[in-house]
Amino acid sequence: MVLARKDPVRIKDLAEHFGVSPSTVSRALSPKGRSLISADLAARIRAKAEEMGYVGDVYATGLRTGRTRTVGVIIPDIQNPIFPPIVRGIQNRMDEAGLVTLIAYSDNRIDLARREVERLLGRRVDGLIYASAFLEDPVIDFCHEQGVSLVLLNRSVRGARGIYHEVLNDEAEGIRQTVAHLAALGHRRIVHFNGPVDVLQGLERREALRRYAAEYGLEAQECECTAFSREEGARCARQFLSAGPSATAIVAGNDLIAIGAVQVFKEAGLRVPDEVSVVGFNGMPFSEMFDPPLTTVAIPHVQLGARAAEILLGEMQGESEGPLTVKLEPVLVARRSSGPAPDGAVDGPPRATETSLHPSIPSS
Amino acid sequence: MVLARKDPVRIKDLAEHFGVSPSTVSRALSPKGRSLISADLAARIRAKAEEMGYVGDVYATGLRTGRTRTVGVIIPDIQNPIFPPIVRGIQNRMDEAGLVTLIAYSDNRIDLARREVERLLGRRVDGLIYASAFLEDPVIDFCHEQGVSLVLLNRSVRGARGIYHEVLNDEAEGIRQTVAHLAALGHRRIVHFNGPVDVLQGLERREALRRYAAEYGLEAQECECTAFSREEGARCARQFLSAGPSATAIVAGNDLIAIGAVQVFKEAGLRVPDEVSVVGFNGMPFSEMFDPPLTTVAIPHVQLGARAAEILLGEMQGESEGPLTVKLEPVLVARRSSGPAPDGAVDGPPRATETSLHPSIPSS
Repeated sequence: MVLARKDPVRIKDLAEHFGVSPSTVSRALSPKGRSLISADLAARIRAKAEEMGYVGDVYATGLRTGRTRTVGVIIPDIQNPIFPPIVRGIQNRMDEAGLVTLIAYSDNRIDLARREVERLLGRRVDGLIYASAFLEDPVIDFCHEQGVSLVLLNRSVRGARGIYHEVLNDEAEGIRQTVAHLAALGHRRIVHFNGPVDVLQGLERREALRRYAAEYGLEAQECECTAFSREEGARCARQFLSAGPSATAIVAGNDLIAIGAVQVFKEAGLRVPDEVSVVGFNGMPFSEMFDPPLTTVAIPHVQLGARAAEILLGEMQGESEGPLTVKLEPVLVARRSSGPAPDGAVDGPPRATETSLHPSIPSS
Repeated sequence: MVLARKDPVRIKDLAEHFGVSPSTVSRALSPKGRSLISADLAARIRAKAEEMGYVGDVYATGLRTGRTRTVGVIIPDIQNPIFPPIVRGIQNRMDEAGLVTLIAYSDNRIDLARREVERLLGRRVDGLIYASAFLEDPVIDFCHEQGVSLVLLNRSVRGARGIYHEVLNDEAEGIRQTVAHLAALGHRRIVHFNGPVDVLQGLERREALRRYAAEYGLEAQECECTAFSREEGARCARQFLSAGPSATAIVAGNDLIAIGAVQVFKEAGLRVPDEVSVVGFNGMPFSEMFDPPLTTVAIPHVQLGARAAEILLGEMQGESEGPLTVKLEPVLVARRSSGPAPDGAVDGPPRATETSLHPSIPSS
């Protein structure tokens, strides 16, 4: 069945119906312009517009103003569980401002990201929010050449700082909380199943882990995952098992790496957390339902998206003062995948600093 | 920092640069038109267009052709875990066809769905895909009045059959597999924590459960959830516990209801599946990581989205023959949340039909 598409009702049609000028109709239909004409006429025009099914026309407005009231968002994949709340946060703010959001996917490929940016510019978006997948990203240079308003979201890109606004999670703070948590539980040897270091998040988390492990007196090894994936978490877990586990806790680069590792440990009969603790990063939805419920660093995803949208809106209105780097603070959520270090796991004498690693008990 | 937006490069600019007509430039830039002009000129125009940063202009094309090559998708919420793969399935197909997808949310409210449809029509979308939340939905009538091409996705709406195409999961088949699975495990008494029956999925699953429970000789009770949510699953689980459990298996209206129920059972010390089996519906991501891993009916979400997109594309090109109702078949994935009925749970003598409920063993 082919439905004949009705011709859209235009401002011109309403103007002819009432024998008034198109600008009078525009005023009647605009919340701001309404007070400029008689209240009675405005009400009659609005009633008729509704009856005739007038739904506005952003295309004509776009050609007149050069603005399409459309923004583009480029993320790796909506099926990555961190992105639905980020996207919702963006769209909530854009909706409030009367803008429509176009969502595109890079699948973590620079060529696809570039293609999507071109497509979005072909749609004349007023601005872009870009969750780049790479530390070095020529797509940023392309956007700069095109002179488009842009906010980087969730992942920073080398060379973009000082050019574009960035809204990021405070990676170092998340790792600091993780290390403090494990130290307080008596762990002394940990392994970081770190994410890929060609992504700034992977790099920043690794750097923070090295720094805070030293600060809290923990011995830290590393196994590098080539992707933030369950498969890579499983690979590092198998490597950890075959080397003969010497550490008592795993700090995973993200929740997917943690999940992959837990799965391998369970299959191998290594008890989590009795024999090894596992801490994730991201606070992905339903991580509290996992077996065991996952200790993880919860990133405020909805707020990240909302904040990026607010900054882009300000930028598009020429309000902003300079490129901002906004860092939102995550919170470690302790669940059952992490627990006290197993007895006897700590070889050698306790260090002088050890007592300070435990949570202090209020004296009164 | 305010970046000056560069004026977009237009076909006209390229035409002036080469001293040719705009239509020659259009041909050089179009895969189909390219062969109509000299290969050398086409290559030079394309190279220059890339150098100058030409990115096309869908708005001018839209005004010329009356088509915007844009479709709208209205879903309840991208944070509901079934929708990311559906949306990705839609966008993959639309991308291939060169169309852009606008995604909007109803938050399960008819007034918001109506507002989003109006906004999308104001953007002159060429068609809509709508995952309605309600069995009775006046938004459908509004779309019909507007004469827009529309495909209903995932949830059917009363009165829409015969007017609009529908792409649905085969709910009855999913319930049949669930009932057969529990019967084969020796369960005789089950409770359906059914979803809201003002949503067609809730209604169809309940009707199917009643039918197949009778067919497989199971005694079925019901607890109605007012939403497909963890909270409602938890409420029915508490009710089940306080009544003194008489059944050995729960058939949840969806995975969120199942998760809420499992959580309450675990907190109450009722072992899943040793004392009660729980089966979900949807096959949401990471359900295999839950404690216990969730037996659930896996819906082919990506394919649902892709199929809806294909049908809408056909409809928009006037290819379709009549309103289609396409049902895709789900598959029960048996995991550890379901197991054999506990010993002694079956009171009364075994029924004559019982042996036929077990999987038949091939005789050769």
